[in-house]
Amino acid sequence: MRKTKSKMPVSLEPVAGNGLLDRRLFLQKGLTFTAFTAAAATAPAVIAEVADGSAKPSEIDPVRPPWMRQPGQPFSPYGVPSPHEDKVMRLPSTNSVLQGNGASWSPLHQLEGSITPNGLHYERHHNGVPQIDPKHHKLLIHGLVEKELFFSIDDLMRYPRHSQTCFVECGGNSNSSWNKNATRSPVGSIHGLVSCSNWAGIPLSTLFSEVGVKKNAKWLIAEGADAFAMNMSIPLEKAMDDAMLALYQNGERLRPENGYPMRLLVPGWEGVLNVKWVRRIELSDQPVMARNETSKYTELLPSGKSRIFTLEMDAKSVITSPVSSTFVPAPGLFQISGIAWSGRGKVKKVEVSADNGETWAEAALDGPIIPKAFTRFRMPWRWEGKPAYLKSRVTDETGYVQPERDELVAKRGRHGYFHYNAIMTLAVEDDGFVTHVYKAEEDDKDSGNLGIDADW
Amino acid sequence: MRKTKSKMPVSLEPVAGNGLLDRRLFLQKGLTFTAFTAAAATAPAVIAEVADGSAKPSEIDPVRPPWMRQPGQPFSPYGVPSPHEDKVMRLPSTNSVLQGNGASWSPLHQLEGSITPNGLHYERHHNGVPQIDPKHHKLLIHGLVEKELFFSIDDLMRYPRHSQTCFVECGGNSNSSWNKNATRSPVGSIHGLVSCSNWAGIPLSTLFSEVGVKKNAKWLIAEGADAFAMNMSIPLEKAMDDAMLALYQNGERLRPENGYPMRLLVPGWEGVLNVKWVRRIELSDQPVMARNETSKYTELLPSGKSRIFTLEMDAKSVITSPVSSTFVPAPGLFQISGIAWSGRGKVKKVEVSADNGETWAEAALDGPIIPKAFTRFRMPWRWEGKPAYLKSRVTDETGYVQPERDELVAKRGRHGYFHYNAIMTLAVEDDGFVTHVYKAEEDDKDSGNLGIDADW
Repeated sequence: MRKTKSKMPVSLEPVAGNGLLDRRLFLQKGLTFTAFTAAAATAPAVIAEVADGSAKPSEIDPVRPPWMRQPGQPFSPYGVPSPHEDKVMRLPSTNSVLQGNGASWSPLHQLEGSITPNGLHYERHHNGVPQIDPKHHKLLIHGLVEKELFFSIDDLMRYPRHSQTCFVECGGNSNSSWNKNATRSPVGSIHGLVSCSNWAGIPLSTLFSEVGVKKNAKWLIAEGADAFAMNMSIPLEKAMDDAMLALYQNGERLRPENGYPMRLLVPGWEGVLNVKWVRRIELSDQPVMARNETSKYTELLPSGKSRIFTLEMDAKSVITSPVSSTFVPAPGLFQISGIAWSGRGKVKKVEVSADNGETWAEAALDGPIIPKAFTRFRMPWRWEGKPAYLKSRVTDETGYVQPERDELVAKRGRHGYFHYNAIMTLAVEDDGFVTHVYKAEEDDKDSGNLGIDADW
Repeated sequence: MRKTKSKMPVSLEPVAGNGLLDRRLFLQKGLTFTAFTAAAATAPAVIAEVADGSAKPSEIDPVRPPWMRQPGQPFSPYGVPSPHEDKVMRLPSTNSVLQGNGASWSPLHQLEGSITPNGLHYERHHNGVPQIDPKHHKLLIHGLVEKELFFSIDDLMRYPRHSQTCFVECGGNSNSSWNKNATRSPVGSIHGLVSCSNWAGIPLSTLFSEVGVKKNAKWLIAEGADAFAMNMSIPLEKAMDDAMLALYQNGERLRPENGYPMRLLVPGWEGVLNVKWVRRIELSDQPVMARNETSKYTELLPSGKSRIFTLEMDAKSVITSPVSSTFVPAPGLFQISGIAWSGRGKVKKVEVSADNGETWAEAALDGPIIPKAFTRFRMPWRWEGKPAYLKSRVTDETGYVQPERDELVAKRGRHGYFHYNAIMTLAVEDDGFVTHVYKAEEDDKDSGNLGIDADW
């Protein structure tokens, strides 16, 4: 996986302003890694050195920890996280009147790699999480079809399945960034209405072949079995292309908050279209014009007109380390890391800047790069203990480039509420303190909320 | 992801004996899918048809289910599976004297896709699961190094990380298949000591650069902080190539039963080398010759000699659907599905036979194909209601082909205990009942255990 692409040692000379180093540094092996050693020696990685070479295990740790002095806990049928990780949790923000209406952010700054664990996948509900008995749940496909059919879970389990890894992102993700002042919250509270899983289920095209779609059908209207009866319209062409009736997430059956026993998966498109607890799919010649595609999920433009059916999610990248309102630990070598994704397909490259966008250098990407899925990026940075402004910028395989905030606001205004995907900036002070800002040296105002701009 | 590779409709003519169909059937879109409809019409997928075309939602389901008549449950900080899925669990088998010594099988037959959820990752412990306080856990790297160093969690969190998706498989996985008679258990109980996750952590090569490895070092000896102080030797060359000190699994910190707060990840090699709760890594010029590399994890051959340090896991594939001791639901179109993997790299192809290995046809693979990771395969099969023998056979990118059981036993005998990777055979009777067998028409004996051959 991590093969050395070049036999030549990678230089520690900066490749862009303010200390960004060659991404191939992470790919180096063997002797050339002494470069890393030299750099890390100045960082306080060493907390204790053994006095001489004669140390034996029993002397090295004079107090054998209690967990080595007694048998451990027994096997468990289903594992849970360590109690020491109980601060790693979703961050809910709900309607004060109707507690089941709101969202719960995935803590991106506490996560790693490219898969979101099921317990920490973001949530967005309109009237709470229905507790569905799968024996009494059926999917009806009706409308402009040759024969209207009900499908029980047992029926569905007999159909051919497919699996793919992809992200799901709320159209309203990152919306506090439309606010005048930047929030200081960790990245999960700002951009955490996105998660990435390995999904498995039945291609919608298979089920539509089963019912026989009439030629004048252009849309499907999906309805959930929650107490809101959430419904949305999806162009039939997309449904036939790569949409799925998902039954499994990261190997196991869906969790209740992710649509158990079944949901739609519409890869790369707005999260709200991935209708959870789906019970009814109507084939139609027009969209249903539901609340969530008229009063919500439309975007007011500076012209006074609104965009509607903005279904595809734009490319976005966010830095997950370092984190706003924490410190870069010490001058020396540091790995800037984050995630990038695009609703249009594969991430082509991610660039990082440490000098507020003056110069950029390409980050290393953890492979394989999967279309419409999280791609983890990493950039070596030698922080000199001076102020810096960090940014990341993704380019996807269609050539689309993530915009700067000014550019996005000039085009869309600040009242669109949905589809915010501008470059994020982190200011690093000379003591290492990190703050989420919109621009270099902006005045010291916080928007006062937790990165969440709710309008439930 | 699922692009139509050919504009030509795929024929429903069998491509191999006993009803195997062209794998491209799953890639077909639009009109050509009417082939699927025609096939599925004979399967009992339709459990109710709406009486006429005038049905409205309120009439379709006269009893609105209770979960649509009241607000659902509130947001949760950390999600758990539906209570209706409480029979999806790991299958433990432990030493009757020492309950913390044993293993717990991942229920492969209840899972889908290519990622194992953390709660269902297989377990193998020698003295239970230590409950480690990460504040009091340190990793010592010592022995043939320039400077011996302790690393706390906080120290380690400052190092550059890498993530990759790979399987971990116990060297003793599938060992009940060495028994004289085939067990009738579901595939998870036989082959479930293997799981696949997205792991993130620090390359060992980075930490070894930090301590400075001496030239005469050839092995590392890793020790866990469990009450067994499990230790194993790993060739330094492998450690420098792609081994990792793993801190995260599927995005979140490791679970206690998977080594919290840190474990080794040795991609593609025996699970026992992936030392959990690792506290000490000693660089050495020779292996430690521990219990688990002398009395265990060696293989007695027919010659009376033993194989030792058989570290790399061979390629293997198993069918996860249909499942032994259950029924193929009905004659008609059925998707045979399973997983394949290889410790040597990528899966190149998986072939399936429905006529006991007389003829084979290539299965469809869910992409992307990741080296040393699960690859999900799928094969369309038209079952005519007659007896059949199903097999799957993987070929990896090195050209290695999964052997038949007779071939493996001829080479290794039946007393090696470890590294069983032969082709699995499922007999389907004319009523659809599925049984795990070694050969066609073998006599009706079961080994009497649950697929688990324990020697803790």
